[in-house]
Formats: sequence, structure tokens, C-alpha cells
Amino acid sequence: MRVNNENYLSIWVDDNEQLKIINQLSLPHKFEVTILHNFEEVVASIKNMLVRGAGLIGVTAGYGMWLLTKEAPKNSIESFESYIENHADRLRLARPTASNLAWAVNRQINKIKSGSTIEEKINLARNEAITIAEEDRNACYQIGQYGLEILRNLSIAKPGKVINILTHCNAGWLAFVDYGTALSPIFLAHDEGIPVHVWVDETRPRNQGASLTAWELATHGVPHSLIVDNAGGHLMQHGMVDVVFTGADRVTLNGDVANKIGTYLKALAANDNNVPFYVAFPSSTIDFTLNNFKQIPIEERSGDEVRNIMGKLNNGDLAEVQICPDLTPARNWAFDVTPSHLITGLICERGVCPPSKFGLQNIFPEQFNE
Amino acid sequence: MRVNNENYLSIWVDDNEQLKIINQLSLPHKFEVTILHNFEEVVASIKNMLVRGAGLIGVTAGYGMWLLTKEAPKNSIESFESYIENHADRLRLARPTASNLAWAVNRQINKIKSGSTIEEKINLARNEAITIAEEDRNACYQIGQYGLEILRNLSIAKPGKVINILTHCNAGWLAFVDYGTALSPIFLAHDEGIPVHVWVDETRPRNQGASLTAWELATHGVPHSLIVDNAGGHLMQHGMVDVVFTGADRVTLNGDVANKIGTYLKALAANDNNVPFYVAFPSSTIDFTLNNFKQIPIEERSGDEVRNIMGKLNNGDLAEVQICPDLTPARNWAFDVTPSHLITGLICERGVCPPSKFGLQNIFPEQFNE
Repeated sequence: MRVNNENYLSIWVDDNEQLKIINQLSLPHKFEVTILHNFEEVVASIKNMLVRGAGLIGVTAGYGMWLLTKEAPKNSIESFESYIENHADRLRLARPTASNLAWAVNRQINKIKSGSTIEEKINLARNEAITIAEEDRNACYQIGQYGLEILRNLSIAKPGKVINILTHCNAGWLAFVDYGTALSPIFLAHDEGIPVHVWVDETRPRNQGASLTAWELATHGVPHSLIVDNAGGHLMQHGMVDVVFTGADRVTLNGDVANKIGTYLKALAANDNNVPFYVAFPSSTIDFTLNNFKQIPIEERSGDEVRNIMGKLNNGDLAEVQICPDLTPARNWAFDVTPSHLITGLICERGVCPPSKFGLQNIFPEQFNE
Repeated sequence: MRVNNENYLSIWVDDNEQLKIINQLSLPHKFEVTILHNFEEVVASIKNMLVRGAGLIGVTAGYGMWLLTKEAPKNSIESFESYIENHADRLRLARPTASNLAWAVNRQINKIKSGSTIEEKINLARNEAITIAEEDRNACYQIGQYGLEILRNLSIAKPGKVINILTHCNAGWLAFVDYGTALSPIFLAHDEGIPVHVWVDETRPRNQGASLTAWELATHGVPHSLIVDNAGGHLMQHGMVDVVFTGADRVTLNGDVANKIGTYLKALAANDNNVPFYVAFPSSTIDFTLNNFKQIPIEERSGDEVRNIMGKLNNGDLAEVQICPDLTPARNWAFDVTPSHLITGLICERGVCPPSKFGLQNIFPEQFNE
């Protein structure tokens, strides 16, 4: 993606072998590149949400495992590998809900095991991290193409009219390496001249819609309007939404979707008003081991994220304001689950499928071979 | 209600005939009493939300009409009355959605007409304003009693367990003269020892839940937790909500309810999870002229209310922070409509009824006499 006339990914290794990210805590008010120097900084960047979004969490974890191999003791393969095993859980548990995190850690552990020398293991980890990032980028590009088809068809049915898309949270390129999932088709549709307008849910408590999605869409020149999370039902009741596109943090075998808290409410409203509701994600987000969405661990974060809001003061400084009485207790679940029956279709890198075991099996048959 | 060991109403006339309100823009960080000196200040206090909430808007309008009679020219009854007619619309249009506003203005105009001298008209307006306030207070007390029955029954079905109530926005005593509607039964249940806990939706964009409901419940000692508006669906999916109580800004003949934006989303979630959903309001909120909820005017307010959030800085100062890029456009509808089929029951000062014409006719037969 282009920012200030330069091409950026959301994470990359520079010419000096330094791992760099766009610090998403500073957006939209400051565009700031941060170096992650070591494994601990990678864990912290995920936990504190300098990076966030299912795909980017996975890719960052992949790079984190590479940094971990560089830090591990080199005296014997055994101590090298047990150091890695012992530390990997800190990364896996940094955020519990998104599948991509444990998926990337496990993939790296298997890859590291396959090397015969420590040096080879470190090289394999480096290359695998880059491969994970490239796969994420390619998957998002494909998702964009499949989602674009949906927008083209909506536009054919409403010639000359603006297609209004509602999205929740940020599933743009900042949530992945590039392109994004829910936003990828929107960027492509805009580029090919389909008139689109995006309703951007602010996405409390951390306002990823207001701060990241609004910024991405503005950077790309896509027309959009910020709304509160409460507004989606009203818009759908009044025919002001043609389609909903969201991302996902974990998808079960039967097509249930864990995504940013509040997604379920939008899916209910879409269902009540016959608005198509699509969920877009790369296959790394599918948890092929889960049949029942009640088994998805839902992260509970600090209530302070609800009590305090970060933003820009009149004088340009960033500051946090407290919106409730001093002693108000707050609870803060980060995700909810949208049952498959409320979803029109799943958009993956291999195509669009019904939100069901049958649908997923059709495009990922190799996962159902047992 | 008691604040700092003193009894307060949300609006009153003091011993010097001054109209006083609690300035709700300063809560929860400062408790501030403001004098409304004249009709224009009343209009501004409603428009800028120093006072808000269906009941309180109506009562404030009633007092505003009294101030208007004092300002009207006294040279002839004709010019007195036409001055009042000409200015009344400014008050009626200060906020378009809540029924109570036009209802109170029209009631005052009829009352003023019934006087034979200007002096009598002014006195009648003063007394009628006080009567409207007293009726509001009594209605809220009755609503509390009827709603308490519902909570008692839930408690009997779950002996010894905490009853979890979810509410949206603020329909406590600050939204009326005293007691409130949705919160009135909760205060009473708490007082009689029923273990209750309230999930307080923050209620974006103006955060009346975080700033007013949390403050009211804390002042009264009722256990509660602040959550984002996005969280309600997740809580209901996981059996963490026993009942939803909200207020209303306008109710149609067939039991559809306009209330704070986002109410509809919570009603959908309640319906999807078999959680009872009650709406509480005094009869002044019913628009007996409307059959179709599409006729309810939905107020659209400034997008700046979405873009900027007021709160308390670390140093105790109040300040606004901007949560999105500088040029992000925002839209801001203040209310949505919950269709009657999602509502379990309506709680009015005359009892609990089904959300239907039949239900309303049963408790307000005199309104259906034509």
C-alpha cells in the first residue's frame, strides 16, 4: 500500500535485517515506524496492539519465532530447541482468540525441527517467516478478487448507484501484510471505477474503525463515513447498506466466526433486513480442530480500555480521557461469535463458500482427509 | 434522588422563582447546577443536551413555556398569544424525536388559551409546568413498582442468584424528574434486597451510559459494570443477561419504539437468545397519532459528536479528544426504532402491556375513543 507516495507493508525486514512495523497505536495521528529488536518486543507488540489483526498477528509471530532462534543458546541442538519450545507459549498466549497466532508459531516450530544444524534452523525460520508473510499477502490479494466479484454483481444490479458497504473494526492492509481481507475487494472495486461508499463502524473500545479503517480508506481515496457501532441497525432498516464485509479472528469447521466484539450484532441486523453478510479471511484463520464455537477462547482485556479513550487534543498532543466516574468497574471482551446461519458466505483465498463444513470442505478438501 | 446527602430533582423552581437544572454535560466529573434564565436558554439547554431524556425534555419544555409567557408582550391578549405561538416552534423543533417535547408544548398552549387574562395565563402556565413535572415523577414511581414485579419474579426463579440487567443509554432519574423509567425498578429492587447487577452500555456517541447511568447507579450503590455497546450480544449468547430494560423516546400506536441509537441491535440479540426485553416509559412518550414507525422523525446530529469524545484528563481537566483522522466525515443519527415484535412488554404508569395496539388500548382506553 502507498503511504505518502511510498510503498509499505505493515511489517518487513529491512536491509540491515531489522524487523520493522508500522506502530498502529500512533495512527491515525502519527505515521510511525517501530523496530522490534527481540522476541520480547514481538510479544509485547502483539499484547499491547502495536500490531493487531488476525493475519498480521500471525505474520508477526512468524518473525518473532525467527528472532527467538537468534536468541536461543547455541551450545547444543537440544538446549536450542527446548529454549524455543519454552518461550513459544509466551507468544501463543499473547492474544488467545485469533487462530493465526498459534498457527504461525506451530508452523515455525515444525520448520525449525526440520533443520539439521542450528545455523540451518535459524535460516529456515527466517525464510519461513518471509513465506508466511508472502502467503498472507497473496491470500489477501485473492480474497480481494473474489470479493470484487460480489461488488461487481451488486453494482450491475444497481447501475450507476453507489454501493454502500458496512464494515466493522479494521480488516484492511494494516490487519494483514498488504491489501487486507474485508477492505481488499473495496480497494479493487474503487480502483476499477465501481462507485463505493463505506460505513466505517468506529469499533469501540479501541476504535480501530475510526483510527485505522478511516485512515486506510482516506489514504486510498475511497469515500466513507464514520458512524458509531450503534448505528448499523438503523442504516440497514432504511436500505442504506447493500452489503456487509467483515474479517475474522477464528473460524470453526462449521462456519461460525469469532471476530471483533459487536460483529454478531451487525450480523443479526443484516439478517433481519436481508442484507448480505460476508466474512473474509485467509485459510490460516480457520481452526480445523473446532466444531463448536463455544470452544473458542474469547480474550478479556483490561477494563481500562473501556474507561479511557485515546485521541488528539486541540493542540495536537495525544492524550487519554476518562469517560466514566473514577471508580466505575468495566468489563472488556474483545471478540464475539457470529453463528454461521447469519452469514451469507465466507470469502477465502480459494473462493467464496457457504458458511458450513460442506462449504469449507469443498475448497479445502486436504484438511478433511482423515 | 439523593446526591451528596441532599434531595434533588433533575429540574426545579427555587424559592426565588429561578428555574434550575443539573447540568448533565458536566457529569460525571462535576456536579453543577445551572440556572435557565429565559426561554432561549431553555431551547439551548435542550438542543445542546444540558438536559436530555424523553421525560426531562418534556418537563423542561413545560417550564420553558412558562418562561415564554413571562417574556411575551403584555399590551394585548392577541399579541401575547401570537408571540407564544410564534416562539413555541423553536422549542418543539429543538429535538425532533422525543414525543414528550411537542406533547408538553401543546399541552401548555392549550392551558394558556384557557386563561382569560394575561396574568391568569402566566399563572396557569406556571402551575401546569409544575403539574407536568409532578405527573412525570409519579409516572416514574409507578413504572418502578410495575418493573419491580418483573425483577421479583426473575429473582424467585433464580433464588439467591444475582439478576443481571442490561440497559442502554440513560433512562434513570436524570432523564426524568425523579426515579427514571428503566432504572426505577432497579433502584427499588436493590432497596428491597434483591441482588441485582447492571450491565451499563456506554452509549456512543454521547456516552450517557458511561457518564450518567454509571454515575446514578454508583450514587445509589447498585452494583454495575460498564461495557461497550458492542458487548451486549456476547453477554446474551453466554447467559449473562437475565433481562433488558430500556427507556423510549417515542412509542407508536402499534408498540414500535424509537429509542437511543443501538437499542434495536440489543433487541435483536435479546430476541435471538430468548432474553426478555422490556421498554419503560410514561404515557407522555406515546404518540397516539402514529401507526407506522417510518413516520417517526429520526434526529440527525452533528458528526462532530462522533469524531470527538469529551472526558477527563489525567490532571482532572475536562477535554475533548479527536478519535479519527482530521478530515474523516461522520454521520450521527441519534435514535433507531425497535419493532414491536422484538419487545416482550411495555412498562407504563398504568401497568405492563403487550407491545401492540391492543395492549396499549387496554391500559389507555380513553385514547382510543374516536
